[in-house]
Amino acid sequence: MSFSFELIRKDPHSGARAGLMRTPHGEVPTPVFMPVGTQATVKAVSPKELEELGATLILANAYHLYLRPGAEVIAKLGGLHRFMAWEGPILTDSGGFQVFSLEALRRVDDEGVLFRSHLDGSEHFFTPEKAIELQEKLGADIIMCFDECADPLDYEYNLRALERTHKWAERCQAAHTRGDQALFGIVQGGVFPELRAKSVEFLTSLDFPGYAIGGLSVGEPKAVTRRIAEFTASLLPEDRPRYLMGVGAPEDLFDYVARGIDMFDCVLPTRLGRTGTALTKRGRLNLRNARFADDPAPIEEGCQCYACRHFSRAYLRHLVKAKEILGIRLLTLHNLHFVLELMRRIRQSILDGTFAAFKEEFLSSYEAREDYRMRRPGGRRG
Amino acid sequence: MSFSFELIRKDPHSGARAGLMRTPHGEVPTPVFMPVGTQATVKAVSPKELEELGATLILANAYHLYLRPGAEVIAKLGGLHRFMAWEGPILTDSGGFQVFSLEALRRVDDEGVLFRSHLDGSEHFFTPEKAIELQEKLGADIIMCFDECADPLDYEYNLRALERTHKWAERCQAAHTRGDQALFGIVQGGVFPELRAKSVEFLTSLDFPGYAIGGLSVGEPKAVTRRIAEFTASLLPEDRPRYLMGVGAPEDLFDYVARGIDMFDCVLPTRLGRTGTALTKRGRLNLRNARFADDPAPIEEGCQCYACRHFSRAYLRHLVKAKEILGIRLLTLHNLHFVLELMRRIRQSILDGTFAAFKEEFLSSYEAREDYRMRRPGGRRG
Repeated sequence: MSFSFELIRKDPHSGARAGLMRTPHGEVPTPVFMPVGTQATVKAVSPKELEELGATLILANAYHLYLRPGAEVIAKLGGLHRFMAWEGPILTDSGGFQVFSLEALRRVDDEGVLFRSHLDGSEHFFTPEKAIELQEKLGADIIMCFDECADPLDYEYNLRALERTHKWAERCQAAHTRGDQALFGIVQGGVFPELRAKSVEFLTSLDFPGYAIGGLSVGEPKAVTRRIAEFTASLLPEDRPRYLMGVGAPEDLFDYVARGIDMFDCVLPTRLGRTGTALTKRGRLNLRNARFADDPAPIEEGCQCYACRHFSRAYLRHLVKAKEILGIRLLTLHNLHFVLELMRRIRQSILDGTFAAFKEEFLSSYEAREDYRMRRPGGRRG
Repeated sequence: MSFSFELIRKDPHSGARAGLMRTPHGEVPTPVFMPVGTQATVKAVSPKELEELGATLILANAYHLYLRPGAEVIAKLGGLHRFMAWEGPILTDSGGFQVFSLEALRRVDDEGVLFRSHLDGSEHFFTPEKAIELQEKLGADIIMCFDECADPLDYEYNLRALERTHKWAERCQAAHTRGDQALFGIVQGGVFPELRAKSVEFLTSLDFPGYAIGGLSVGEPKAVTRRIAEFTASLLPEDRPRYLMGVGAPEDLFDYVARGIDMFDCVLPTRLGRTGTALTKRGRLNLRNARFADDPAPIEEGCQCYACRHFSRAYLRHLVKAKEILGIRLLTLHNLHFVLELMRRIRQSILDGTFAAFKEEFLSSYEAREDYRMRRPGGRRG
């Protein structure tokens, strides 16, 4: 069985869409939030818990898995699904973003990229063909083209990088042999509408089953991200899923679903969980705060996650202060539940024709933070 | 409902016994292994998982919980069971061992112990009355007397400490008001049989519902531990449970069950889990070892734990090498399953009259390690 995407309902008042992706490992209702499992594990969460949370698609990273434990090892053990015991759909990122965000980037030419591992400094050479070969070994349901990620504000660099990204997209497509994997193209072009338009034009001529918008949410102002993402999404074919890479804070989900984005990934829920912070309808809750020391309430009243059904803020604060792993686990579970449940409700509101009202209701009480930026060598987009 | 202990079957060929403790939070078949939840969480494990593992009694520590988050906080939140969402029986250690193992022990007199917190250096004074008050606030099903832990090899010190431990046991009993908690006495006396005998004689005159053997497994040779534990157990009344504190490596369970011990606690399964080591029928398996890099086998063939049913050694090794929390979780689950399942099989073998054969079968293939010793400020016995 191969990949397909069905558009089910379009919101009449915005660009929001509800759809359904079909993959060899199951269906993925869209819009969808992908928990990030960079190293073949969503940090601190078991596959069983991911299933209970209702995750339908998770993300792993070819760059990290290539370095450790190696794509051959995973292939030998039956592929990524079996390796990590996750039966559902997986998307792998190609490693383009990771390689280009490395401090130890050595040389880029038309052939590929020479870089040093962030783990041990060893030298490696990635080409589009190699990125596809790796991802075929891993065996994810959706794989990504290898792209050059330029500074979004540097026009000259983006002009050159785009040329290369397009040639690499062709080479990725030519190298791709597995019919059970969908290869998505990645639109680049920085913050420059004409480059984005050019990129969409070229990539759609290659007829990919889905398109990602890359090179955003990497430091540029949020208003710019929104404008460029909206513009780019508006040019993309309606019958293909659109994936805004590295974006997925709660407020973002509304912003970009309204702009026609179908797929999101973000380390925010898991990373906040590891730093003692919970997501709630009113914004973030820092469980280290002394006012929670004897608070018998759950993180959020009415929340149906395991953490909120059984534990008080006081207990969670204790775990966080005492550096207990269970604290990280419970906050991560809650945060993933929060975002996944929010996405389910967003999708339902699109189906019900109440997306605009739900968006307004949510954003009126949710205090967003603009402080979330993440760029580090070998790190995740977003 | 209050505490009771029923002796169900005695092994005709050794001191092994199968029994049943009844507590306000449920029944505890004995012999029993208690997972250690020092800070109101068994490290890296959720209460739901503990239940699935078949844990029937867990241990927490009054010293640690007094310092953080404070016994008042836990009492205000409904007691320890509710605080940590564990519905089953709990035993709290009094803090005697912890306080006496602190580097920052300040002064001991007949009244109590002045010490500095291992967390922030603040000064605190513990008395027997305070240790009981704390444990009543926590609300465990079984609580422990406050005892003085002496160097097991120092006769003079043990002579003096024993006098004090006995007076403190009387004061603990006098201070204890909650009828729904069983207060256990702790036999001291180091490696000296006559002191152990004196301690048993005195403490049994106070008629505690259960007796612990303290002050062992703290650095003395294992052969000495065995001899003293056996001697002490032989003097204790048959109709009361006997708890050998801080002992519980797999080989120990057989050794001491055979010597009439009913209750064990040990950080070994959880601590090994955090260092990448798994317990198996043949001994310990260090998952960091390169030979597991592409090993598709589970930790142990036939093991029914979650880790072994779903994951390969190769995946576990990857998680350990990549410092992923899921690695700690899965190894901890496996190790707890291993010890709890072993104890269930030991108990069944006593009931079936096959304990000696099961012991021989297990120990013939299990490679024990003598390297496990743990003494650090604020740490656990064992």
